[in-house]
Amino acid sequence: MTKKKCLWLFGLSGAGKTTLANALADKLSTNKVKILDGDILRKGINNNLGFSNEDRFENVRRTAEIAKLFIEEGYWVVVALITPFEVMRQNNRKILGEDYIEIFIDTPIALCEQRDPKGLYAKVSQRKITNFTGFDSPFEIPQSPNLILKTVDRTIEECVKEIIVFIFSEKL
Amino acid sequence: MTKKKCLWLFGLSGAGKTTLANALADKLSTNKVKILDGDILRKGINNNLGFSNEDRFENVRRTAEIAKLFIEEGYWVVVALITPFEVMRQNNRKILGEDYIEIFIDTPIALCEQRDPKGLYAKVSQRKITNFTGFDSPFEIPQSPNLILKTVDRTIEECVKEIIVFIFSEKL
Repeated sequence: MTKKKCLWLFGLSGAGKTTLANALADKLSTNKVKILDGDILRKGINNNLGFSNEDRFENVRRTAEIAKLFIEEGYWVVVALITPFEVMRQNNRKILGEDYIEIFIDTPIALCEQRDPKGLYAKVSQRKITNFTGFDSPFEIPQSPNLILKTVDRTIEECVKEIIVFIFSEKL
Repeated sequence: MTKKKCLWLFGLSGAGKTTLANALADKLSTNKVKILDGDILRKGINNNLGFSNEDRFENVRRTAEIAKLFIEEGYWVVVALITPFEVMRQNNRKILGEDYIEIFIDTPIALCEQRDPKGLYAKVSQRKITNFTGFDSPFEIPQSPNLILKTVDRTIEECVKEIIVFIFSEKL
């Protein structure tokens, strides 16, 4: 039986992280599964953090520590969080060790902008939002993700299947 | 069946919070139970907080938010944390609502000092620690705890039994 892990889905706003996290949790739901969604955590434990680099780091750090508490309980943890800087991902690996599976949701920014599920890209172009990842806040391409998931021209089902096959393969 | 709750054990250092939390979790262990111990959380998610009033508040707030995440999963959560100020306890109730059961571990400071399981009172008297609850940092007597648990001249078993009887009584 595969040991429970933290599947850390990250990438640009609109890349499909939340959608894939929910679909993935459904597939894993014969087990105990906890979704940690960045947007939801910002309404609770991370509600005192903004979008400066420092606050974003702390946002990611706390999420990794919470993931650890659930892994201790034998949960699969599925995180959906932009996690824009490599230093954050390195810190995740430090906190979670081999339980950390880094999955880059690799969707081109043009497609994210076109999808714009939360209407954020529209607000950015109207200059109503600052510190937005991909515009005035950088997104560092990951150097050593466990999986790079391309989402262009693929269904949610195909994407989830690729993740499931990966985590139950010999590689972990 | 009693709905799962957060049993928030609070009181002075050395009052018996951790000991009682562990014994209580054992009693509840036919269910899913998560212990959130202040000392342990300070090594993880709260490792960037000190002992100023502001940091103590944040320490308590984050713990309440984590408790909420576990209650969502159907866990009993047992917290062991000094929680010295009334405003913190009010905030806990705000975050956790009716799932919050406030249990004051009412042990006189003289007895805590005598037990001194972590050698902290000794350090305080040698002035090696500052901001210590009960000395140069206040402990506010709770105004509306759900249960006041006296520990003097009682066994751990007797104390745990009182909590168990309380939470499975008609009162909740």
